[in-house]
Order: sequence, then C-alpha cells, then structure tokens
Amino acid sequence: VATPELPRIAKRLSRRTLTVRRAGLAIGLGTLVITVGAGLAMWLLDHEEFPNLGLALWWAVQTVTTVGYGDVTPKSDRGRTIATFVMLSGIGLVTVVTASITALFVEAARRRLRIESDRARDARFDQIEQTLARIEAALRERGPT
Amino acid sequence: VATPELPRIAKRLSRRTLTVRRAGLAIGLGTLVITVGAGLAMWLLDHEEFPNLGLALWWAVQTVTTVGYGDVTPKSDRGRTIATFVMLSGIGLVTVVTASITALFVEAARRRLRIESDRARDARFDQIEQTLARIEAALRERGPT
Amino acid sequence: VATPELPRIAKRLSRRTLTVRRAGLAIGLGTLVITVGAGLAMWLLDHEEFPNLGLALWWAVQTVTTVGYGDVTPKSDRGRTIATFVMLSGIGLVTVVTASITALFVEAARRRLRIESDRARDARFDQIEQTLARIEAALRERGPT
Amino acid sequence: VATPELPRIAKRLSRRTLTVRRAGLAIGLGTLVITVGAGLAMWLLDHEEFPNLGLALWWAVQTVTTVGYGDVTPKSDRGRTIATFVMLSGIGLVTVVTASITALFVEAARRRLRIESDRARDARFDQIEQTLARIEAALRERGPT
Repeated sequence: VATPELPRIAKRLSRRTLTVRRAGLAIGLGTLVITVGAGLAMWLLDHEEFPNLGLALWWAVQTVTTVGYGDVTPKSDRGRTIATFVMLSGIGLVTVVTASITALFVEAARRRLRIESDRARDARFDQIEQTLARIEAALRERGPT
Repeated sequence: VATPELPRIAKRLSRRTLTVRRAGLAIGLGTLVITVGAGLAMWLLDHEEFPNLGLALWWAVQTVTTVGYGDVTPKSDRGRTIATFVMLSGIGLVTVVTASITALFVEAARRRLRIESDRARDARFDQIEQTLARIEAALRERGPT
Repeated sequence: VATPELPRIAKRLSRRTLTVRRAGLAIGLGTLVITVGAGLAMWLLDHEEFPNLGLALWWAVQTVTTVGYGDVTPKSDRGRTIATFVMLSGIGLVTVVTASITALFVEAARRRLRIESDRARDARFDQIEQTLARIEAALRERGPT
Repeated sequence: VATPELPRIAKRLSRRTLTVRRAGLAIGLGTLVITVGAGLAMWLLDHEEFPNLGLALWWAVQTVTTVGYGDVTPKSDRGRTIATFVMLSGIGLVTVVTASITALFVEAARRRLRIESDRARDARFDQIEQTLARIEAALRERGPT
C-alpha cells in the first residue's frame, strides 16, 4: 500500500498544530473555492439560464454543500449536465476531505500513543543491555582459564 | 505532526465512557446550538425577509442539516450571503465533527489492542530478565577465579 | 479513554466477516427503521397535515437521508418542531454510524498489520531465549568451581 | 474480527499509489454508475412519470448525491417506492465508501509509522544478539573446566 498524498492544505495544517478549528476553517474555505469555480462555470457555459453571476453563485453554494433548496435550478440539457458534474465532484470532494482529515486526526493520536509504547519498550531494552554488559564484564574479569 | 485539539465536548465525552449513544446525542445538541445561532443571525440581519424568529429557525435547521426543502429561502443578496456563510460553516462543522468522533472511536479501539500487545511483550521481557538474573547469580556464585 | 460501545448491529457484523456489502446493507436497513419511526411519529402527532401514512413516510425518507425535495413539508409549528427533531437525529445518526463503521474497518486492517509485527517480534524473542538457554546450560555444565 | 472486504476499486487504487485525487475520482465515477442505474430503473419502472431518460437521470443524480432540488419528483406510490430504495442505497453507499477510503488512508499512514518503529526495535534486538554471541564465544573459549 502506498502513502496517500494528503492535499497540500492538509499537510500545511498538520505542520503547524492541526487544531479542529483550523481543519474546519480550511474545509469551509476549500468548499468556497470550489463553489466559486462551479458558479463561474455555470455562468459562462449556461449564460441564458444564469445571466447573473450572483444567481449562479447562489445556485453553486446550495449544490456543492448538497443543501439543494431548488429555488434556482437549470432547466436546459446543457445546464443539467454542468450541474451533474458539479454534484459528482461535490460528493467526491466531501468524501475525500472527510477521509483525509480523519486520517490526520487518527495519525496524530496514534503517534502520541506509539511514543509512549516505544518509550516503555526502550526502557526494557536498556535494562537488559545493562545486565548483559555486567555479565560480559564478569566473564572478562576472570580472563581465559 | 501535532496533536489535534479535539473539541471540548468530545474530550469530556471520552473521559466518561464514550458510548455511541452519547456521541450521537452530543452531535445532535451541537448541531442544535449552531442552528439557533444561524436562525438568530438571519432574523437579526435579514429582518425584512425573516420577520418571524420561528421562520428563521425553520430555515436554519433545514440548511445546517443540508436537508434544504426550499419552502423558505432568502431572496435578497444580503440574505443569500448570510445563507452562504451558514452552509459553508455547516459543511466544515459536519466534516470536522465526523472526523473527531471517528478518531476517538479508532483511538479507543487501538488502545485496547495496544494494551494486549504490550502485555505480551512485557511478559517476554520479564522471562528474559529472570534468565539473565539466574545467569548473573551463577557467575557471582563462583567468585573471581 | 473508555471503549466505545459500538452498536449491536455493528458488533454482530464484525463477528461474521464485516464485508463492505454487509455494512452498507446494515446502514440502509438502519436508516429504513428510523425513517419508519419518523414517519409514524409525524402521522400520529401532526395528523392534520399528514392524514396519510404513505405521505408521512415519503416526507420521512427524504428528510432522514437529507435529500429534502421539499414537495411535502410541514407548515404548522407542531409539524416543524417534529421535523427539527427528525433532522437533528438524522445528522447525529449518520455521523455516528459513519464513525463506527470506519473504526471497525480501521481496527480490522490494524489487527492484520499488528499480527505480522507481533509475530516478527516473537521470533526474535524466541531466538534470544534459545541463546540464553544455551549459555545457562554451558554455565551449569561446569558446576561451581 | 474479520478483515473488511474493501471494494475492488479501492483495492486497485491502493495497489498503485492511492492519491487523494484518484480516490476522489473513483468516488465520483462510482456515484455516476449508481446514478445511471437509478435513472434507468426509474425510467423503466415508472415510465408514466418519467417518459424521458434525461429527466430520470436528472432526478437520479440529485437524489443519489442528496442535493434534492425537488424540481422533479415522483408523485405515484410506485415512483416513491423506487425513490425510497434509491435514497436508502445512496446513504448506505456514501457511508461505506467514506469509511473504506478513510480506512485505506489511515492504514497507509500507519504502515509508514509502524515500519519506523519496527526498524528501531529490530536494531535493539540485533545489538542484544551480538552481545549474546560474544558471551557465548567467551564461554566456549574456556572449554569445560
């Protein structure tokens, strides 16, 4: 199994303390960026139904977040195709972001637990090595018989 | 990687047994608090479209939970801007809460598994230390030749 | 940290092989049960707006799954209060179920990895114990000098 | 606990580097496949309300992704029963996919961490075995007294 390439935002976040607040903020901002992209795409490619950028952005945010009020929806085949693409991307995005953030949280918690366990193990190894050093010294003291 | 700062509610939950029921309850209550905040904000800042607090709360709960019936929606730019903020916060919140709860569940399960493994390891270390103690005693018994 | 009390369905699932298919099925069935409960509650407590059980169930399924078409929605305060409760429970449920299933998947994968690691460790311990047994035998052979 | 049978797509993904981009793409494509299945089912089984395949697909994508605009909804009992099945499958699917992807991410991160820890452990074992070999050689050198 290869290492997952966590998104750059997540990596940056983990370098400076990954707090829950920062993770939530990053997700909110990331969603905003995708929303703006979806709104711009709809406005440019289905200009007849969405002549107003504000309207396209309002449609985009309720689509990407899966709220879907339905007060503004595309009626043309072209608009519905764009919307389908936006919805599928939205699902893919939310799932992957949730998985990445969860993995980062789990990894941080595990690292803490692992350090405790490894420290306990190393203490036992140290003790055994000291005993072995004493045994070796005792044998050497006598010299070859 | 730094340690994630799990929300205080989650930490409290984990101190007394983190049951699935309690986690679910905490999430439901947390969502309720955010809903009330969103409803109050809409009622105060877009008073023309939401003159009734009950209506604003009804809009807020279907927005934060991403149900989005669409029977009550803001039409003004101001209302839609507030709604956009609520939706983005909602997505950030749900994702981060899911990640935190999952990390807590995973950590609890791992701790149990780790304890078993560490106990097995320590038993083996104990045995080796006893053997080493016997060897050292045997060497000491003879004294320097 | 205490052990999370995974829901009984999840525990049962994990006893016999927890396949992805079974987990998905269990979630679908669990959601169905909650939907029927929500539909019955709406039909019994807001009988004026939902005189038909079929209609109440149709409302319930699109609410619990957060689809929220909005073709059937409560208009009275009583109905909206019940709906609020259903939505909050829905969010709590989906989050907790996702977290539990994820923890079960992670635990199963870890158990496999842990077994490999513990086996390697025990092989090394076995080797050391054999060497120690030979050393002790060599010392005993000579008898006290 | 048995090993979870991660979906074939996920397994394939993990064989060649599981990047976040690939995981997101796989989820988007998987959702598309289920959407097409749901749209075809609705079009075939509720032909009166959905005489147009395009309309059925448009309904399917907003249902599976839980956006639920509500501009196109089934009104007949037959159509609503099919829709209920699609919604429950959608919830089951999204939850299980999120859990699987998360488990894969967590496993990959853990494997990396585990390798570090196991390497440190093996270095200590190597050192102890070398010391034991020297002790044994020293004892053998003297021969039986």
